[in-house]
Amino acid sequence: MANSRYEYVRTFERESKLLPSTYIVIRIDGRSFHKFSNEYQFEKPNDLKALKVMNLSALKLMQLIPDILLAYGDSDEYSFLLRKDCELFERREFKLITTFSSLFSANYQYYWNVIMVDKPLNVDRLPTFDARAVCYPNEKTVRDYFSWRQVDCHINNLYNTTFWNLVLKGNLSNQQAENKLIGTLSSDKNEILFKQFGINYNDEPDIFKKGTIYVKHFENYNNNDDDNNNNNHDLSKRQMDRFMKKLKKCEIVELHCDLIKDEFWDNRPWLLM
Amino acid sequence: MANSRYEYVRTFERESKLLPSTYIVIRIDGRSFHKFSNEYQFEKPNDLKALKVMNLSALKLMQLIPDILLAYGDSDEYSFLLRKDCELFERREFKLITTFSSLFSANYQYYWNVIMVDKPLNVDRLPTFDARAVCYPNEKTVRDYFSWRQVDCHINNLYNTTFWNLVLKGNLSNQQAENKLIGTLSSDKNEILFKQFGINYNDEPDIFKKGTIYVKHFENYNNNDDDNNNNNHDLSKRQMDRFMKKLKKCEIVELHCDLIKDEFWDNRPWLLM
Amino acid sequence: MANSRYEYVRTFERESKLLPSTYIVIRIDGRSFHKFSNEYQFEKPNDLKALKVMNLSALKLMQLIPDILLAYGDSDEYSFLLRKDCELFERREFKLITTFSSLFSANYQYYWNVIMVDKPLNVDRLPTFDARAVCYPNEKTVRDYFSWRQVDCHINNLYNTTFWNLVLKGNLSNQQAENKLIGTLSSDKNEILFKQFGINYNDEPDIFKKGTIYVKHFENYNNNDDDNNNNNHDLSKRQMDRFMKKLKKCEIVELHCDLIKDEFWDNRPWLLM
Amino acid sequence: MANSRYEYVRTFERESKLLPSTYIVIRIDGRSFHKFSNEYQFEKPNDLKALKVMNLSALKLMQLIPDILLAYGDSDEYSFLLRKDCELFERREFKLITTFSSLFSANYQYYWNVIMVDKPLNVDRLPTFDARAVCYPNEKTVRDYFSWRQVDCHINNLYNTTFWNLVLKGNLSNQQAENKLIGTLSSDKNEILFKQFGINYNDEPDIFKKGTIYVKHFENYNNNDDDNNNNNHDLSKRQMDRFMKKLKKCEIVELHCDLIKDEFWDNRPWLLM
Repeated sequence: MANSRYEYVRTFERESKLLPSTYIVIRIDGRSFHKFSNEYQFEKPNDLKALKVMNLSALKLMQLIPDILLAYGDSDEYSFLLRKDCELFERREFKLITTFSSLFSANYQYYWNVIMVDKPLNVDRLPTFDARAVCYPNEKTVRDYFSWRQVDCHINNLYNTTFWNLVLKGNLSNQQAENKLIGTLSSDKNEILFKQFGINYNDEPDIFKKGTIYVKHFENYNNNDDDNNNNNHDLSKRQMDRFMKKLKKCEIVELHCDLIKDEFWDNRPWLLM
Repeated sequence: MANSRYEYVRTFERESKLLPSTYIVIRIDGRSFHKFSNEYQFEKPNDLKALKVMNLSALKLMQLIPDILLAYGDSDEYSFLLRKDCELFERREFKLITTFSSLFSANYQYYWNVIMVDKPLNVDRLPTFDARAVCYPNEKTVRDYFSWRQVDCHINNLYNTTFWNLVLKGNLSNQQAENKLIGTLSSDKNEILFKQFGINYNDEPDIFKKGTIYVKHFENYNNNDDDNNNNNHDLSKRQMDRFMKKLKKCEIVELHCDLIKDEFWDNRPWLLM
Repeated sequence: MANSRYEYVRTFERESKLLPSTYIVIRIDGRSFHKFSNEYQFEKPNDLKALKVMNLSALKLMQLIPDILLAYGDSDEYSFLLRKDCELFERREFKLITTFSSLFSANYQYYWNVIMVDKPLNVDRLPTFDARAVCYPNEKTVRDYFSWRQVDCHINNLYNTTFWNLVLKGNLSNQQAENKLIGTLSSDKNEILFKQFGINYNDEPDIFKKGTIYVKHFENYNNNDDDNNNNNHDLSKRQMDRFMKKLKKCEIVELHCDLIKDEFWDNRPWLLM
Repeated sequence: MANSRYEYVRTFERESKLLPSTYIVIRIDGRSFHKFSNEYQFEKPNDLKALKVMNLSALKLMQLIPDILLAYGDSDEYSFLLRKDCELFERREFKLITTFSSLFSANYQYYWNVIMVDKPLNVDRLPTFDARAVCYPNEKTVRDYFSWRQVDCHINNLYNTTFWNLVLKGNLSNQQAENKLIGTLSSDKNEILFKQFGINYNDEPDIFKKGTIYVKHFENYNNNDDDNNNNNHDLSKRQMDRFMKKLKKCEIVELHCDLIKDEFWDNRPWLLM
């Protein structure tokens, strides 16, 4: 065929497949969201409507891709956990990450237009997200990944809450507020909030302090399914097919709870299957 | 800091940087666009308004990223050529491809809403694009890449034009039309078009036959700039800075011409600089 | 410094680090060993002295690199298991595999000269080995890897034993023997050996049927060390330091037994730590 | 077949192929050669017999692998240039680098035993080499790579010559010599050598100052072969076959000259073909 003379250029393509039998975490991150939130005048320190756009986008992505068991997000980022035997796109990295970045960006613009009706998007400042994939080989490292993100959410939110109270209610300039917070511990920020603004940080909404979790939920998860498995939670082919069928129609629940403690994972053994 | 206990999970991230001093081509591709074009009832064989959405999206992306010297697209795909010394995102592959897939998807949805006012998007079938990056080490392989895509455009468009004339005017079913075309040469398809439908394929619009090219254009490109260079077109630091400044404000021209022949490249030596 | 003008060429180097917390298996393979074994007139089907050179080379490599817990080899190949938290060469792939290929080749030539005193090496046919590294994320996949190699050893040895008896005692040509064995099952080969040559395959030496295993051995491995661990066998820093110290001085035992069954692994829990 | 149950473990193997149409440089490096040169009491600053073992090893490797056009080495390292269209091992990285590290180590031990008859090798301190591959996309970057190595040779040799004269003839301790040289320029070292030891560095042997080059040599290279080529030196299939035939039987020449200047490359256009 006429094309064959040039088709050799395909041999320059390189392919990277993610290691089998490892949990895949894909994290999307808003590109230049500092500028984005200024352009569209987000409420500070947290804009509930903007968070809602993020959460709806993540939820929709999770509904479209059954291999996602768990999503965790805050601010302008979201992390998605794919089950360890996931064969989506044959685990080809470029397909996985560009599909996630594209799909999340598409969802975000769609829901923005629904929810932010008074803030039409400017074509030179559209919301976009990059994405990366990381493999975690076992339960401990997966849990530590999500703990890392939730601790990060806490640290950032405590900082931002204190910073914006100093600026908006304390009448400090941004620079003054920043200087005041340099070197402070969590306890110092809690004290500033309480003494200066009468705010008990513990009473702040969980969606700000803990972020948002979406989790596939099984009402009557039959633990006996698991009884015959070895330590690695390996399923027989038959069990796996049954599990995947359940996954496609199972409920997705929104939570704003602690995912660092054992309880969260012990109650949902299917997450690390 | 409290976070350090979990932060070790970052060591599981893997980074791939594209080889320096090679041309980078990033190709975006519509995901499931066969279904997408059915859902939104694209005109067959070519939907001019849908092509316009593609082209506006590519043009906007090119305006936002100065390192892109050339874009070529047809149907639901677009290829972008980045200059060989491009340092965008330090040439980190994941950043490059997820930014392109995300940005193109965002642009597409934006322009769709502007142009396709009578076809509101369905959240379960939003337009999305995957993206891949390929490195080409020299001028010959870059040119062969774009020749490959333009020949592919020609082959597909001739096929589709014949197929849809057989279906829409020739009253064949899709299956019948497909069977009729199995094993046919280009000359056979030209003959079917001419004899059965009075269509001279050569008279079809160039945007369908050749696809769309966006190219950075310099009116008075000073060839003398190039005189002191060696064969590799290596520029001095000073020349490169001057070139980048020009790039940021230079005109972008839309073409629907042949890019396989030497003329296209000989007239625009800056493309392969 | 004068060098800086050219030093930029280092930016073209690419680095790949193996995923942390996964077991690393490095397999070395003789290059063109079919020709090598002809050149140096190996005994068929198995040359015990050549196997001894392989085994001494593997043992020495294991003595030099404490992170190796297990080695398994037969014919002209050897697989080495590195513990999952191994940080040798910061898990840089190129360093790991070229060190193993180089070190094994060096050991092999050294021991060849000691043992094969009557067969001096020809500089145009020196023994060399390539090497590859593969990551396995959990106990099941590591065990399946070694089972794969031991089953392969069995299949090859049964074939070779039958083939060479047909040739050497049965007076068939190589081609005739090959033809006779096409499509035969294990039971067929066992029958040929028994009926035609009076050989009971089960009585063949284990070193041929099972290959050779080198394993780090702890006489009084204190299982209590392990009691406090979670399912992932994660060790505290203190426990790990203690374990590494033991590793450096512990005995290495040579075995020719079954490593497919649970018993082998259950008796040596430190192998999959 | 019985093996299939475990054979899935092969899907965990990862493969990296080097970018086509780029020059491949493979550099081997002695492992722990500081200790090695102490153990076997190398002459300082340069041991001619040890250099001879290096050079014979590189030459033999070059004879065995026709794709190598050029080798450059000094001290305990050697760099090999493979032609840009080389398809050795389908450009699979692991095969290329482990073959080079293995083959070089094998050659080295062989020639050591021939040349260093009075220094038998100790099995716990055998000579081994790691290897890495780097792709260079054009002539400039290849030349800069080799310039980098030759400048490095010069810098190290000037330092070592001065250092060892201070220690061996100047009766300084290693520490005193090191301190004396901290912060010195090339001109300072030249002056120390001349004033204190009557040594004109320019009169030192070229093999020490410039390192060793092996180059494929064509007596009557027909430049006309090249006349029809474009700037990229692309050859027709017929020309390439003819070139490869020549390569397999052509002479290899040893040089100790400057390879930084144009002359070296201009006189040997086939090196960058």
